[in-house]
Amino acid sequence: MTDNTQTDYRQISYAVADNIATITLNRPERLNAFTTTMAAELIAALDATDADDAVRAVVLTGAGRGFCAGADLQGGAATFDHRDPQRAAERADFATVGGAPRDGGGCVSLRIAASRKPVIVAFNGPAVGVGATMTLPADIRIASDTARFGFVFARRGIVPEAASSWFLPRIVGISQAMEWVATGRVFDASEALAGRLVSRVVPGAELLPTAYAIAAEIAENTSAVSVALSRQLLWSMLGASTPWEAHRLDSRAMNRLGQAPDAAEGVTSFLEKRPPKFPARIADHLDVVPPWPVRPEEMS
Amino acid sequence: MTDNTQTDYRQISYAVADNIATITLNRPERLNAFTTTMAAELIAALDATDADDAVRAVVLTGAGRGFCAGADLQGGAATFDHRDPQRAAERADFATVGGAPRDGGGCVSLRIAASRKPVIVAFNGPAVGVGATMTLPADIRIASDTARFGFVFARRGIVPEAASSWFLPRIVGISQAMEWVATGRVFDASEALAGRLVSRVVPGAELLPTAYAIAAEIAENTSAVSVALSRQLLWSMLGASTPWEAHRLDSRAMNRLGQAPDAAEGVTSFLEKRPPKFPARIADHLDVVPPWPVRPEEMS
Amino acid sequence: MTDNTQTDYRQISYAVADNIATITLNRPERLNAFTTTMAAELIAALDATDADDAVRAVVLTGAGRGFCAGADLQGGAATFDHRDPQRAAERADFATVGGAPRDGGGCVSLRIAASRKPVIVAFNGPAVGVGATMTLPADIRIASDTARFGFVFARRGIVPEAASSWFLPRIVGISQAMEWVATGRVFDASEALAGRLVSRVVPGAELLPTAYAIAAEIAENTSAVSVALSRQLLWSMLGASTPWEAHRLDSRAMNRLGQAPDAAEGVTSFLEKRPPKFPARIADHLDVVPPWPVRPEEMS
Repeated sequence: MTDNTQTDYRQISYAVADNIATITLNRPERLNAFTTTMAAELIAALDATDADDAVRAVVLTGAGRGFCAGADLQGGAATFDHRDPQRAAERADFATVGGAPRDGGGCVSLRIAASRKPVIVAFNGPAVGVGATMTLPADIRIASDTARFGFVFARRGIVPEAASSWFLPRIVGISQAMEWVATGRVFDASEALAGRLVSRVVPGAELLPTAYAIAAEIAENTSAVSVALSRQLLWSMLGASTPWEAHRLDSRAMNRLGQAPDAAEGVTSFLEKRPPKFPARIADHLDVVPPWPVRPEEMS
Repeated sequence: MTDNTQTDYRQISYAVADNIATITLNRPERLNAFTTTMAAELIAALDATDADDAVRAVVLTGAGRGFCAGADLQGGAATFDHRDPQRAAERADFATVGGAPRDGGGCVSLRIAASRKPVIVAFNGPAVGVGATMTLPADIRIASDTARFGFVFARRGIVPEAASSWFLPRIVGISQAMEWVATGRVFDASEALAGRLVSRVVPGAELLPTAYAIAAEIAENTSAVSVALSRQLLWSMLGASTPWEAHRLDSRAMNRLGQAPDAAEGVTSFLEKRPPKFPARIADHLDVVPPWPVRPEEMS
Repeated sequence: MTDNTQTDYRQISYAVADNIATITLNRPERLNAFTTTMAAELIAALDATDADDAVRAVVLTGAGRGFCAGADLQGGAATFDHRDPQRAAERADFATVGGAPRDGGGCVSLRIAASRKPVIVAFNGPAVGVGATMTLPADIRIASDTARFGFVFARRGIVPEAASSWFLPRIVGISQAMEWVATGRVFDASEALAGRLVSRVVPGAELLPTAYAIAAEIAENTSAVSVALSRQLLWSMLGASTPWEAHRLDSRAMNRLGQAPDAAEGVTSFLEKRPPKFPARIADHLDVVPPWPVRPEEMS
């Protein structure tokens, strides 16, 4: 079991309380601009939340007035040029598969997709570029009314990354995705809500309380095994050609879980009109549904 | 041709009038809780609507104040444990493929997906668990303002079934799906409407009239062959990698149907500004688009 | 480079101004009803916009009070019968692959999908049948408040074509798609907006100014290479089974574009708070993401 609060991160902070882990992007002086260090730390933090049975949900937010300003542009014109010596060195330490560098935002977004715990993103301010795309595989996204968003890649001469070409159209529909991507414009929280990028917009003071209330609702009422396997099922089946594949997989999962202790507790507690106390551990049931890979080199 | 009203069902009722079949979940004393008997009868009823050329649309609703409370939990802690002798016996009679039991909700939802006739679900009250998931492949879902919904699986220690991991994200988007599935909470009709789980919410007294008005609009104005093949096309192409597959398939369908009598009647009646009288029978044109399998053992 | 205004089209008009091409369906006396001639001219016009580096965005609209009334029904009962000698001759000139005729609407819609330039559809009035379906792969669809829409195929005895069985559910969700397709009814602009078929509804007088404002926003702020490759990425990944495929592809694209001149200009102009002047040409970067085929015979 990990410590409740880890203090060895440099660009994020990590704390656990009431069965909820909070990961905070923590470079407020740079509006939490994204770096390879931040990417590596986010991945380490998600490894920690997965490994800690006491963590039932993860809240991801930003320190200061921004959520994440996107890639740190301090490198100027060479920012996205991986031949640049400094970036090449960072990159070699970070994510290279078969000699080819992997996109850092994608390493984070795909790590979120593989999370065993549900992830709630609380946008406390602007989320631009990778600041928006890396959050797409989270389960729930809510925003402060001061948040703004931008898929600004076409304005920087690059393309949407972090596997957002796969995730974004599945969340907001291909037309809304193309409109935001083709114009690259920055838009406010109400447009994000109308377009279903976020599911709620609240005043800034209510943002974290709302996120924690959702997290607590999950922690107090659901089986950790059920939530972990449900994430695996839904994300996997999003790419399946037919529902028969889902039918075979959920038939198997229902048979296995029907014999496991959480199903007995779930039904019994419901019939007895009392809160459930689910005993099962995720690690004992992960093979029920094939999990998604957590590292780029595992993605075939 | 089947009788207009069949009376040999035990847990549903079945009636045909004005070219519309009504299937009613009929265990009102148990809020129409789902059983293997109900599943088998729903499948039989959909076999009947498919076989009866007089049926142009199907309305599925519930008797009493609920639509379907989900799996019947009278079995208590063993409800989802298929090693339980009574459940194993029921199961062996119902759906076992290659020795492995198949999820009953999925057998129903996939039968709805394969229906030749459009299916309109009228939620007259709460629809929870399989009561919600089995309806996802219907064409149209409308609700009374007293309806409530819950994908409560994580609260019972199981996972979303009835192939809902495939269907739900394709209907409401992956983010809305994960929010409802991860929290397992029960929500009202207005949230279902906002999340696009249902397309209309009406006062209870207007629910069935609204459903029948939609069914009549289909029955009076459309070609049965066109509707059956359109269902097959859209559901099949939802899993296709590229639109070229759709282009090849609809090129073929347009060529075949363009030579068939309904296309001539469709254009002629439109030009003559009179209601159409479409002569073609579904059974004669089913091969135009490969149909979906109707039984679990046919799903490869 | 093509002429700014071409005058050799018969059923459309084509003009380029301010880096925006306008393609206008131009048979107002027939409400711009669709013909094989119109299809061939639309494809030629999109070939022209692709080839012309001066064109940064395409606006597609209709002359007169309609956008496109659908297939021209002057052929009466034989309209969709390709054995009809006149239609067979037209067809042989147009799109036949391996001896089998290809659907004309699909040839247009798939050409739009493969466009290197973003396409904005401005529905100035009714768009019915192929008039609606051929526009589905456009990036942005906006409508005048006088526009109406209908996926009326089931009322004509045929099926949704133009690969709409693939596109429509990916834009509006499978439930909304099935409701419109099963009933075949004509609906107004507000329902199209609520169902996300269009992203904005404006008074008729504001329609083209709004479309041009969106096009100008793209032309003035974005890299042509970025927009072209983003279109290819998003459409391709809509059919990919897993996001890892997107991750590999966008890692490669980010590496390549990070070394190209538009990324340097994008970052530099942002840091200097001035409008960008992107130098790169689409033709030099098309291989970064595998492009979609532009002709039916290339679609394997």
